[in-house]
Amino acid sequence: MTERRTYSYLGPAGTFTEVALSQVPEARDHEWKPVHNVGEALSDVLEERSHAAMIAIENSVEGGVSTTLDALATMPGLRIVGEYLVSVNFVLVTKPGTVLADVRVIAAHPVAYAQCHRWLGENLPRHEHVPAASNVASALGVLDGTLHADAAIAAPGIVQHHEFDVLAEKIGDNDNAVTRFVLVAKTTAPAEPTGADKTSLIVELPDDHPGALLEMLEQFSTRGINLSLLQSRPVGDALGRYRFVVDADGHIHDERMADALLGIRRFSPRVVFLGSYPRADRKIVQYPERYADEIFVEARDWLRALIHGEPED
Amino acid sequence: MTERRTYSYLGPAGTFTEVALSQVPEARDHEWKPVHNVGEALSDVLEERSHAAMIAIENSVEGGVSTTLDALATMPGLRIVGEYLVSVNFVLVTKPGTVLADVRVIAAHPVAYAQCHRWLGENLPRHEHVPAASNVASALGVLDGTLHADAAIAAPGIVQHHEFDVLAEKIGDNDNAVTRFVLVAKTTAPAEPTGADKTSLIVELPDDHPGALLEMLEQFSTRGINLSLLQSRPVGDALGRYRFVVDADGHIHDERMADALLGIRRFSPRVVFLGSYPRADRKIVQYPERYADEIFVEARDWLRALIHGEPED
Amino acid sequence: MTERRTYSYLGPAGTFTEVALSQVPEARDHEWKPVHNVGEALSDVLEERSHAAMIAIENSVEGGVSTTLDALATMPGLRIVGEYLVSVNFVLVTKPGTVLADVRVIAAHPVAYAQCHRWLGENLPRHEHVPAASNVASALGVLDGTLHADAAIAAPGIVQHHEFDVLAEKIGDNDNAVTRFVLVAKTTAPAEPTGADKTSLIVELPDDHPGALLEMLEQFSTRGINLSLLQSRPVGDALGRYRFVVDADGHIHDERMADALLGIRRFSPRVVFLGSYPRADRKIVQYPERYADEIFVEARDWLRALIHGEPED
Amino acid sequence: MTERRTYSYLGPAGTFTEVALSQVPEARDHEWKPVHNVGEALSDVLEERSHAAMIAIENSVEGGVSTTLDALATMPGLRIVGEYLVSVNFVLVTKPGTVLADVRVIAAHPVAYAQCHRWLGENLPRHEHVPAASNVASALGVLDGTLHADAAIAAPGIVQHHEFDVLAEKIGDNDNAVTRFVLVAKTTAPAEPTGADKTSLIVELPDDHPGALLEMLEQFSTRGINLSLLQSRPVGDALGRYRFVVDADGHIHDERMADALLGIRRFSPRVVFLGSYPRADRKIVQYPERYADEIFVEARDWLRALIHGEPED
Repeated sequence: MTERRTYSYLGPAGTFTEVALSQVPEARDHEWKPVHNVGEALSDVLEERSHAAMIAIENSVEGGVSTTLDALATMPGLRIVGEYLVSVNFVLVTKPGTVLADVRVIAAHPVAYAQCHRWLGENLPRHEHVPAASNVASALGVLDGTLHADAAIAAPGIVQHHEFDVLAEKIGDNDNAVTRFVLVAKTTAPAEPTGADKTSLIVELPDDHPGALLEMLEQFSTRGINLSLLQSRPVGDALGRYRFVVDADGHIHDERMADALLGIRRFSPRVVFLGSYPRADRKIVQYPERYADEIFVEARDWLRALIHGEPED
Repeated sequence: MTERRTYSYLGPAGTFTEVALSQVPEARDHEWKPVHNVGEALSDVLEERSHAAMIAIENSVEGGVSTTLDALATMPGLRIVGEYLVSVNFVLVTKPGTVLADVRVIAAHPVAYAQCHRWLGENLPRHEHVPAASNVASALGVLDGTLHADAAIAAPGIVQHHEFDVLAEKIGDNDNAVTRFVLVAKTTAPAEPTGADKTSLIVELPDDHPGALLEMLEQFSTRGINLSLLQSRPVGDALGRYRFVVDADGHIHDERMADALLGIRRFSPRVVFLGSYPRADRKIVQYPERYADEIFVEARDWLRALIHGEPED
Repeated sequence: MTERRTYSYLGPAGTFTEVALSQVPEARDHEWKPVHNVGEALSDVLEERSHAAMIAIENSVEGGVSTTLDALATMPGLRIVGEYLVSVNFVLVTKPGTVLADVRVIAAHPVAYAQCHRWLGENLPRHEHVPAASNVASALGVLDGTLHADAAIAAPGIVQHHEFDVLAEKIGDNDNAVTRFVLVAKTTAPAEPTGADKTSLIVELPDDHPGALLEMLEQFSTRGINLSLLQSRPVGDALGRYRFVVDADGHIHDERMADALLGIRRFSPRVVFLGSYPRADRKIVQYPERYADEIFVEARDWLRALIHGEPED
Repeated sequence: MTERRTYSYLGPAGTFTEVALSQVPEARDHEWKPVHNVGEALSDVLEERSHAAMIAIENSVEGGVSTTLDALATMPGLRIVGEYLVSVNFVLVTKPGTVLADVRVIAAHPVAYAQCHRWLGENLPRHEHVPAASNVASALGVLDGTLHADAAIAAPGIVQHHEFDVLAEKIGDNDNAVTRFVLVAKTTAPAEPTGADKTSLIVELPDDHPGALLEMLEQFSTRGINLSLLQSRPVGDALGRYRFVVDADGHIHDERMADALLGIRRFSPRVVFLGSYPRADRKIVQYPERYADEIFVEARDWLRALIHGEPED
């Protein structure tokens, strides 16, 4: 009999994060623990209350999720072990009986609210907004009356858990909106490469030379490595100081990636390696032939022969 | 008698934005119009209800202000004409009579809440958080009872407008936290250079070649231009597509800056020039002698002589 | 009736340079003046004794012709106006009656000698070498006895002017050897572009920053300009100081080339523009669409509008 | 008793090459074998007739010595083990009794002749030139009458071996002219670093991507390595194909140099490593602190820990 494991996620039931967690086969039939924020989820992992935590890391509309990126930058001992994509759309829900014409005040998490800007402008131009702590809290606050609002913007999953009337569906401005989630565990050796992997890093730039970002990007480009995410975040101690969150195509076991990581480490005052893990879209990583593993291995053999005074071939 | 002008700002009275506006000498004795959000402030300018709008653009803790950056990227016809810095700190306020030991629920704008994380952890570890729409709304909601909270995180200026008890001052995690504001007007010719100027741009990258960001940065570095802000923002139509908000040291009247702008324009599918304006810190821009204006002028004279077949000196 | 013009070339009759001059239609029926060296040919032009001079500039086996490159670098007031290619091969000639078995001492210009190394090794392994001043002087010296040699390496054309026995033909090591010649006139406006042009420069690098060559190359690569020649030459005052001779695809009238020239001029302590002229092979220059002239023109219009405060489109 | 070794050099006695060989302490009291050309000297080494060969590699006036560079590029199995500098100047010598007013015809090696251009123009403007095979052959040919010349340009050392009248000293155009020589042995492990070392390479560029030279230079610049020689040489099979001779500051045992060599090897179709050896000027190599050996070692340790899932510090 296998051990029962706990997975933390931003709750309550019905959030997009729960949808992401439902995509993890190895989490099925284990305990899912709803938590209140990203920090709590990651603390659960670090303090071994949970085996892993599912957290949102990037949204196609809003960009990198600041609290996640900053938590990963400052809480050592974690590794991303998987990536999951969830289509993001929103519904407008009310207590049974309310109709659209009655809606004056709308409860919504600020991020969700921003994503429904166009629909609201067209359909409820004179509404007021009451902020809520999550896409579920908004709906529950309307249901139980703790939020003074007539309707709530919520994730579609909410109707599976509670009794609501749905006044409108797909009210988000962008039909293709997607949120990217990552599953985070304690530091562990990266899983074997699948050929469709990505590597995540947080890199602080030295502030004493101005071309530092250029130099960081060159560490990847000169080894044929493509970046799928580059997000600046302030370090927080002064205006103008940044760290960068980077997703790079490939695995730390790839020679070109290992070489790029060495280059990054040598010039950055601080690098956080977040992990090498399979991409959610399972797309095989393409790279120029000249950056293949065997080219790196052959060059090392050549160098060794030179140093030992062996004849070149 | 001069015409009376209107200045829009994120209200109500007591916000950090109002503090920023109070730094503008030419706004004194004119009308200050509080608005509810950045979009409204900028619409006031575009539709000529206001002469200019003061908006927050970057915070030393949280980074670029997404809504501002996205509004500037998508609302054409605007120009930044000034920059202002405001030290950001927070107070914990209550209705007169409440003491710290009574505080269970705290109202706070999410950004302010995030910046007081450490103080709250140490002093009120078991608190609950009720989100509010602004640093003023949080306090007013506590005062008038519309927010079910015992205390509010607010900007210090609030106590000049309303009767509160201040339970704690400077509760922000970072003593040096600063927010940068910009004053935005309708498109106009940039003011003359002061020697201490910055130029703001929003640059969309072509997605057909991977080294595009590298190339954009080189347009500046190869002309000796330093960047003080580089912030990625998703374009919003798909994961992995970014635009970049850039603050570059110098003025569009500087030869090196004009040349860099030409380079940027040639390769970017879309560039928004936000303006050249005096830096808030009035620090004179330094650059290598080889990028001085006269070097550019001399090279153009030389090229002209070559084309006309005149002898080289 | 047209004026009779003089063309200087490295003589005497029978040299490869004469073959190059015979490719110039406008030189037909004018005076061809044989001279002794490149310096004399260029002085003829500068002092207006000749309309133009034909000189060898690069050889596919030996590389750039040092004396030509150094003369062009140090004699101001000249422009390359045309380019010509001559297949280079060599014959072994003797006074009538000598047979191969008799040949012990071979007269040859050092460059020609070097190019026949393999044939000589196989056929005359025990020969001695007497250097001669040109590919014609070698043969004439054998004929008139002023060189103590039994045979001479010469250009094939020699047999049209003098009585020789040809002991062997095509004795050069490389069947595809080609020498590139240029026609040089006094400084004049470059001819109109043909679409198949090249631009020649000599660039001295600043010695105070180590990445100077990298920077020079980037001036071309960042404008989509390919280089067909890059030859280092010592400046001559100290070890380690170089100037570079550059042939770039395109014409000074091309926007991208003009922009690159401006960039080069700004950072180089000394640039000699040698001219924009049609390529010998008449191959149309290819370049990425993004470096087309109209892109440059459009960017300038955009910049002008920004500076004048006109609305962006 | 130590074994008697043979050292080949371009003879005969009295050449600058002999002066260079006299700077080699370990060659003292061994056999010095004069040879006729660079190819012969290197063959002596490869076929073990000689322990090492002294050959000229670069001249401050004329640049890289083509025959040496091409021989090193095409004869595998050799290593440079030492570097020596010789001040180059010239004397004008005659048979005893001849005075300057009598001199009409001058014998000179073409390279030496080119370096005395100014002196000859001022002092013997109407002279004729007879080329000679070396700086010694010119003088001997005048002495024994095999060259029809009145005087010879020669190396100063010639007067220690033969009876000449010296008509003029220091007739070279450049007082600081220096020739750089290298001592070449069979392939062997590089000697231990001295801190004042250089590394010599010959790198062929891939012809399928245009920025190849840029990329080669970046392999050095991105590791803080300065180049003291960069000389292009045609590969010889077609116009426009080059190999580059590179002298880089530092030793193959330096981490940054080893890493640069790996980078070069990975992208070049052919690299010849010529050796790491002490600089003639014994000048300690300077490099930015961030490229120190320990930075490389630390980065490798870090990478290894990541791969094994060990916690980061």
